[in-house]
Amino acid sequence: MNQYAAMNRVQLQEEYQRLLDAYQAFQAQGLKLDMSRGRPGTDQLDLSTDILDVKEYIAPNGFDCRNYGMPNGVQELAEIFAQMMEVPVETVVLGGASSLNMMFDKVADAMVHGVGGGKPWLLQGGIKFLCPAPGYDRHFSICEYFNIEMITIPMTETGPDMDMVERLVSADEKIKGIWCVPKYSNPQGITYSDETVRRFAALKPAAKDFRIFWDNAYCIHHISDTHEKLLPLYEECLKNGTEDMVIMYASTSKITLPGAGVAAMATSPKNQAWDRKRTGTQRVCPDKMNMMRHLAYLKNFDGLLAKMEDHARLLRPKFDALCAKLDAEFAGTGLLKWHKPNGGYFVSVDTLPGCAKRVVALCAQGGVKLTGAGATYPYKKDPEDTNIRLAPTGIGIGELTKAAELFCICVKLASAEKMLG
Amino acid sequence: MNQYAAMNRVQLQEEYQRLLDAYQAFQAQGLKLDMSRGRPGTDQLDLSTDILDVKEYIAPNGFDCRNYGMPNGVQELAEIFAQMMEVPVETVVLGGASSLNMMFDKVADAMVHGVGGGKPWLLQGGIKFLCPAPGYDRHFSICEYFNIEMITIPMTETGPDMDMVERLVSADEKIKGIWCVPKYSNPQGITYSDETVRRFAALKPAAKDFRIFWDNAYCIHHISDTHEKLLPLYEECLKNGTEDMVIMYASTSKITLPGAGVAAMATSPKNQAWDRKRTGTQRVCPDKMNMMRHLAYLKNFDGLLAKMEDHARLLRPKFDALCAKLDAEFAGTGLLKWHKPNGGYFVSVDTLPGCAKRVVALCAQGGVKLTGAGATYPYKKDPEDTNIRLAPTGIGIGELTKAAELFCICVKLASAEKMLG
Repeated sequence: MNQYAAMNRVQLQEEYQRLLDAYQAFQAQGLKLDMSRGRPGTDQLDLSTDILDVKEYIAPNGFDCRNYGMPNGVQELAEIFAQMMEVPVETVVLGGASSLNMMFDKVADAMVHGVGGGKPWLLQGGIKFLCPAPGYDRHFSICEYFNIEMITIPMTETGPDMDMVERLVSADEKIKGIWCVPKYSNPQGITYSDETVRRFAALKPAAKDFRIFWDNAYCIHHISDTHEKLLPLYEECLKNGTEDMVIMYASTSKITLPGAGVAAMATSPKNQAWDRKRTGTQRVCPDKMNMMRHLAYLKNFDGLLAKMEDHARLLRPKFDALCAKLDAEFAGTGLLKWHKPNGGYFVSVDTLPGCAKRVVALCAQGGVKLTGAGATYPYKKDPEDTNIRLAPTGIGIGELTKAAELFCICVKLASAEKMLG
Repeated sequence: MNQYAAMNRVQLQEEYQRLLDAYQAFQAQGLKLDMSRGRPGTDQLDLSTDILDVKEYIAPNGFDCRNYGMPNGVQELAEIFAQMMEVPVETVVLGGASSLNMMFDKVADAMVHGVGGGKPWLLQGGIKFLCPAPGYDRHFSICEYFNIEMITIPMTETGPDMDMVERLVSADEKIKGIWCVPKYSNPQGITYSDETVRRFAALKPAAKDFRIFWDNAYCIHHISDTHEKLLPLYEECLKNGTEDMVIMYASTSKITLPGAGVAAMATSPKNQAWDRKRTGTQRVCPDKMNMMRHLAYLKNFDGLLAKMEDHARLLRPKFDALCAKLDAEFAGTGLLKWHKPNGGYFVSVDTLPGCAKRVVALCAQGGVKLTGAGATYPYKKDPEDTNIRLAPTGIGIGELTKAAELFCICVKLASAEKMLG
């Protein structure tokens, strides 16, 4: 039973009035803050701005990266990605600045050319994807854009509900993919358990052209001193002979400069041959100057880890402040559930059923923009209307403290409204 | 009648032996030169290497380009593209580093989502494109990749054979596009006449989802002091109400650094709305840091033109040397046809029928790699086997002189072989 359910109507009305006063006082401050997206803060951008000092353009193999050519990019950078993604270096395929673009393009390719010799998805028709939710809204947008039916898979503390995943993929050959953010997941910040990873590697999909989209966006994006470990999926797949079933993604967007980094994919030789047909037609070569910029700047995997330590040092106080506030206001109240993550970019919270949309609207009118309620679910429809994704990274700690205060008021206000009926 | 046809068999055999000796002497030199692609020379790359000095990251509108956001990119750079492409600034859409990628992506989009509300091309089936030829091999590769049937349109001195273009597009609603390099065309270096441009603007295609892919890759890429003028197509289309029919492309790849520049598209508001649906799903934002690098470096359209003057100064001696050699060896012989271009990156030549493949093979064995014979035609099939694309830009002038000498020997050798039967 939640705190408000224990009150009588008069007490609850008094509480509601008190909250409304506090809320209106907040509105009077005229805040204008954006916590809607997982954006690094300006202090984090400052960490990597000296990447602009890099002048190197001759690759370690002697190639002049100022010109066309070298269609596979700067391979020494692939070695850094291999360590980061915990995959063999020969699985790594370097891309442009956006891993999202690489995922989009893979789905686009499958629609027209099929996967692994299969019929084009557009001609098969009725294609479906599994969508662990809450999840990353931009994954779901790709499905919507290509008119791929989304099936929601509940997230547990150890990852997606694997019983459901196994049952569905083995029974329905129209299910062609699943979106995963396996480490410090977006938005909950949980890491898939070893058992979950092993069950993914052992999947026996009815569709031969089923692929796991393993978006390892936060693979080294720790916040606390507890560095969670994700069992490397590719190794497990090799044990099962299922390595063609998985395509993994990562990028330097939250390591160096967002939108101006380097993205990569890791996948089997067979999937790479399929990919090269496309990229060979799609462009002359990738932006090797940006690859050289990143190689010369990060130098090696240790250089990259050192950079991530710097990020963690800046992020930790923000997550601490936000979660301390949630603890102080909601511990034992039953009004809000949350999980303090050890990495990633978000704090995912769950309100009382039917309150999330109202909380987001109240926050917006109070001057704090949150991710749209429902965005973390397929078709933007959160069945219980409970999940809200908080992105504390993009604003200063003083602003964050204010935003957190407003957020707590709004959660209580929406809860009280709900209980008053 | 060509020079060799006027010789008797003994004379021709003597000539053949003389050429073979010269060829073998060349082979002994062990050359290893690449004239296969339109690559800038190292001296041209040096012109723009100080773009690496740019440190600016705050856009003119105050946006910090180091972070996510600003999905349409740095609009001040769009203004430079607008002047370069001679289009209204509001038609310009900035992209990543590759205009080829933008064209590819547009065709990929049409396959799955259709064009302007039309049925997806993949579901329509039997889609065709018109391919003025000789033309750009990478355009043709996009058609092959998407299994789009290519119809060859002969090139004339004023552009594609417009009688044929008009007749075909008005009669066949399966014809959905045409590839054009309207200025300093690849490979001939000719510029479409005003009449050709006006006829393009006035096309009445049977297919409502027909689009002109206007790849203005060499729009300001003059070599000589004669700056050819291309009538701006978009303006002409506006007069005809056909502005939705055209999508124009350009990039800075041969202005700053190839493969690391900024690409752009120019098209109507209606086509842009269609495009935004895709790019909004495809990526968070373009690489704005590279846009800032280009804006701060080029500053404005005048800065860009000054850079192109520098390029022309370096390119002119190469085209002069190559064409002077062709003049000296072939004027009046009837063995080779060519045109000295005022811009672009190529010299297109035509051998006697049935000789081009042999010439390219002889050059390769002599140590000079040329673009594959036939590459300038759909399906790599030059019906007469005459066209060869020479790319004189990527090598030094001393090397070029040697390569040109070898090329001339090979043309004569292949011609003599042919005449000897």
